[in-house]
Amino acid sequence: MSPASAPQFVTALTLGVRDVQASLAFYTRALGLPLVHHMPGEIAFVQSAPGQLLALWNIASMPGEYGEVGFSPDSAPPVSLGRNVASAGEVAPLIERALAAGATLVGPVTTREWGGTSGCVADPDGYRVDVVHNPAFSIGEYGSVTV
Amino acid sequence: MSPASAPQFVTALTLGVRDVQASLAFYTRALGLPLVHHMPGEIAFVQSAPGQLLALWNIASMPGEYGEVGFSPDSAPPVSLGRNVASAGEVAPLIERALAAGATLVGPVTTREWGGTSGCVADPDGYRVDVVHNPAFSIGEYGSVTV
Repeated sequence: MSPASAPQFVTALTLGVRDVQASLAFYTRALGLPLVHHMPGEIAFVQSAPGQLLALWNIASMPGEYGEVGFSPDSAPPVSLGRNVASAGEVAPLIERALAAGATLVGPVTTREWGGTSGCVADPDGYRVDVVHNPAFSIGEYGSVTV
Repeated sequence: MSPASAPQFVTALTLGVRDVQASLAFYTRALGLPLVHHMPGEIAFVQSAPGQLLALWNIASMPGEYGEVGFSPDSAPPVSLGRNVASAGEVAPLIERALAAGATLVGPVTTREWGGTSGCVADPDGYRVDVVHNPAFSIGEYGSVTV
């Protein structure tokens, strides 16, 4: 889509990370996100959705643009990057793939009270990555979701 | 796209929020993201990209699936949701729109040393929202980015 006709979406998602190389390796291996650009030690971009980049930015560089941001010693950032899958059976293999890429297990694959199946891991900085089958979600043309 | 042919993208982004209604109002007004589903007090979904939902989830409900996540008293979460625009002149109006929707100014619109123009605000929970013109980014078919 051309910039002029771009709809009103989030076109970049930026996470502060402690080690750009480690985070890049994680997201390309754990979720298979395609690499777009890498400036070693500073920032890496992967494609996170059609029309959206995930930027993995050295957190030391963030305050100049983003002000006082940081990690808490007591808890992980309350953020999760999710992969929705089409069947409950697809959840466990993706969790295994993330663990093989260096993730830490947060919650094993579980049937949830809301009717879905999910599992959750942590990336190298503690950001959550969840794999979810939600039987209530339908994905239509251009990836729009109806519930 | 059908789930079977879905590429390997991030299909959901979940932020822990203190007030679901306030966050929903912010993201629909500040960024114009379309509402998909709202369960008052618990969670709201807006469409954040083709094939991706942004979930605004009551942080009190998160630990059951995501473990120990939380806000730091000293700093905001190191996360920003970005809107890339096609020209430097489009940055300021979007920052103004976000401020009118209740954002807090973090960094005024500035020409950056890396050649772009950006401004940054904070959402009701402190998550950063940045508006960026990056002259090095080209957006191709299906929203894939080349640098």
